[in-house]
Amino acid sequence: MSAINYNKATSITFNELKSIVGEEFISTDKEQLEKYGQDETEDFVFLADIVVKPQTVPQVAAVAKLCNDNKIPLTTRGAGTGLSGGALPVKGGVLLSMEKFNKIIQIDERNLQATVEPGVINYIFQEEVKKLGLFYPPDPASWGSCSLGGNIAHSSGGPKAVKYGTTRDYVLNLEVVLPNGEVIWTGANTLKYSTAYNLTHLMIGSEGTLGIVTKIVFKLIPLPKHDLLMLVPFRDAEDACKAVGQVFRAGITPSAMEFMERDAIDWSIKYAGEVNFEIKPEWQALLLIEVDGNNMDVLMQDCEVIGGIMTEHNSDEILFADSAEQKAALWKIRRKVGEAVKSNSVYKEEDTVVPRAELPVLLKGVKEIGKKYGFKSVCYGHAGDGNLHVNIIKGDLDDKIWDNDLPKGITEIFELCKRLGGTISGEHGIGLVQKHYLPIVFPKHQMELMKNIKRVFDPNEILNPGKIFE
Amino acid sequence: MSAINYNKATSITFNELKSIVGEEFISTDKEQLEKYGQDETEDFVFLADIVVKPQTVPQVAAVAKLCNDNKIPLTTRGAGTGLSGGALPVKGGVLLSMEKFNKIIQIDERNLQATVEPGVINYIFQEEVKKLGLFYPPDPASWGSCSLGGNIAHSSGGPKAVKYGTTRDYVLNLEVVLPNGEVIWTGANTLKYSTAYNLTHLMIGSEGTLGIVTKIVFKLIPLPKHDLLMLVPFRDAEDACKAVGQVFRAGITPSAMEFMERDAIDWSIKYAGEVNFEIKPEWQALLLIEVDGNNMDVLMQDCEVIGGIMTEHNSDEILFADSAEQKAALWKIRRKVGEAVKSNSVYKEEDTVVPRAELPVLLKGVKEIGKKYGFKSVCYGHAGDGNLHVNIIKGDLDDKIWDNDLPKGITEIFELCKRLGGTISGEHGIGLVQKHYLPIVFPKHQMELMKNIKRVFDPNEILNPGKIFE
Repeated sequence: MSAINYNKATSITFNELKSIVGEEFISTDKEQLEKYGQDETEDFVFLADIVVKPQTVPQVAAVAKLCNDNKIPLTTRGAGTGLSGGALPVKGGVLLSMEKFNKIIQIDERNLQATVEPGVINYIFQEEVKKLGLFYPPDPASWGSCSLGGNIAHSSGGPKAVKYGTTRDYVLNLEVVLPNGEVIWTGANTLKYSTAYNLTHLMIGSEGTLGIVTKIVFKLIPLPKHDLLMLVPFRDAEDACKAVGQVFRAGITPSAMEFMERDAIDWSIKYAGEVNFEIKPEWQALLLIEVDGNNMDVLMQDCEVIGGIMTEHNSDEILFADSAEQKAALWKIRRKVGEAVKSNSVYKEEDTVVPRAELPVLLKGVKEIGKKYGFKSVCYGHAGDGNLHVNIIKGDLDDKIWDNDLPKGITEIFELCKRLGGTISGEHGIGLVQKHYLPIVFPKHQMELMKNIKRVFDPNEILNPGKIFE
Repeated sequence: MSAINYNKATSITFNELKSIVGEEFISTDKEQLEKYGQDETEDFVFLADIVVKPQTVPQVAAVAKLCNDNKIPLTTRGAGTGLSGGALPVKGGVLLSMEKFNKIIQIDERNLQATVEPGVINYIFQEEVKKLGLFYPPDPASWGSCSLGGNIAHSSGGPKAVKYGTTRDYVLNLEVVLPNGEVIWTGANTLKYSTAYNLTHLMIGSEGTLGIVTKIVFKLIPLPKHDLLMLVPFRDAEDACKAVGQVFRAGITPSAMEFMERDAIDWSIKYAGEVNFEIKPEWQALLLIEVDGNNMDVLMQDCEVIGGIMTEHNSDEILFADSAEQKAALWKIRRKVGEAVKSNSVYKEEDTVVPRAELPVLLKGVKEIGKKYGFKSVCYGHAGDGNLHVNIIKGDLDDKIWDNDLPKGITEIFELCKRLGGTISGEHGIGLVQKHYLPIVFPKHQMELMKNIKRVFDPNEILNPGKIFE
């Protein structure tokens, strides 16, 4: 944002922080700084001066106040699984890890609500509420390791978002520490809320730049009793994209509607292990479609309708998962595709999102832009939401093209998204790596408006500096 | 908020406004000022200096800029059906009616989206999308006359919110005119969004204090094919409230779960006309429960489960609506109850909301507080959301008690809401009549934070002054 002169964390800062969080929860070891200087975004490493791991809300408040009073950058970190560099301490200073905030405080079965700390891992929370017949739907691909606080930072989605919405749709209330050490609850534990400005929604997706979330009240829903999963192969990727919209138009909302290009499938299978069915050479794309609900007959009927639509769009023979194991195997291919691509080459992942029916246009455009600039892309994502993850692969591409031409290509992709009514991030956030592209979707006066909102919460701009805005 | 010295709209202002909106769309007639000086909140009348009815976005921008440059209060008005005084021009100045923004610009069947102007009436929009097999669920009691822009101002709910959410859950993107005449789109036309601060959600529920909405992009969903409606009588109102929570716990989410106290039923029937079934004298409360979906067998099964739960909670015999006419008659009783109460006595309506299972505690507390301060209340509302409309009836209560003691009683009711994890407005907003009570739910530093957000958008504080904040 503006040219703030930040201070480094000194030895005095260190001692004060140590007295706040305790000796075993503070570190300046290089190994620790390196560990907390990375996330899942490309190959970035940024070192903070100090890592702290507070265990209580008053400790978080004291750390924030200390940094605020001394203009020391303060970057909050969940589990470090982010894909936009949101947790990287790019300006040094203090790295505040929320990993000790790992308690599920209460699952309120009477009200279908849960109060949790932000360091709880998504999958652990899902499993705990499932035991009570309850459901917390948001399920990012990284659910096994990502934290609920990180999910709040980006309003993370996942396959189930197409039917159940993203993280945002399940947050009722947040306890937040502000940079000056004040603590607020953003809203109320209610399903409806019309009580002044909605600070809960403002906080969600703000990527740690407005406050530090210390407690979350989630809404839960009843767990659906059944699900069915089908894998639909296509010879033509655009046919697959076109089929997607027709399913919703037929009045069916699947609980997952995932798209994978041929390369994504091959790489994921290579990475995650064999599958017990043939991937025919002529298949260019797959849709993974799940329906869920309480009545198996209805689900079967839905699958029949979906099957008809797929056939009309030139699908090859549909595979129904006939056991829990086969379902798990199919989901594994989808969930591991990100890691697989990452392990295969240097890459850049773009989190494009457009109105659902524009997906074929976006896919075609991405390929054309790739041809123009000489880069290859592997695409997969949440087709039902119009959310396409475009992985641009370095492979043996010349460094000069990668550094100089690629940003032009990405700019063109994002401009296409904007023209189609979409935007540059559906669920990964802006963080570090997309901030240069933000002016594509917002005019200058809107950027200024957002920066001024930031300054209301964080006048010294200590919270996660160098993110979202240039 | 702060002590701003506003200017009155002068004859120079009038001429400038006239040249912006055109002669037939501006008025200073007393009759017009009175008409636009009221809404559905108690018996308030506040006169603006001038009423304008712009027809285009550039006109709205020019009106805003003129008021901003001259520090003239500017109050935006939808259809004037609000219940918290949000549309009342309490500081005079210019009243901007959005009634000419009444076009449904596009219903996009491919993407299940619609772009509309904010002056479109809720019910008209519902009917238009229904013709295409699509569904826009938010349905305030006033749906026949309220505008979609007004619904955005308060994130209005309605009976269907229990299953489908409030207005907020259907807004994808907003075109907004800022006080300085700049125009922004708050987000993108996408189902997922993680692109910097969520200005769409900040705008929703901000009651015309941050900007003027000029276009709305809504998400639509497939229209459910069937619904079933049942009326469940109880001898004990608390039993009814207790039964509500159990339905959700059984894994069923009804599409409506409405509660009415005895007096509410009697008054509504008296006001709205006869019903073709007996209201037994011993009934103290009714639940109106609707389920909807695409499969009639599933709905029948759900009704059976719900019926069982009701019986366990001491309900009397359940009435199933067996025709479209009977459904309409039952809904009419519920929809007209607000008007009926209003026609019966001077009253104050509180829009309390708590976690669903706390509803029996809230209802009991309201009655106890009423006894303590000597006032009678008639309660009804959206039990499935924990949203109870408490209508405090003046009847022949002494003016002194009404003026002096009632605010104490209301304060106690709101304090109870807060203690139960709830808040002071679920769907009506804060507006004029609840702003004195806002400090019950927010500490001073949080109020200051919200006021500062207001100043980012509206530094001269011209937009709907005197609302939300003291």
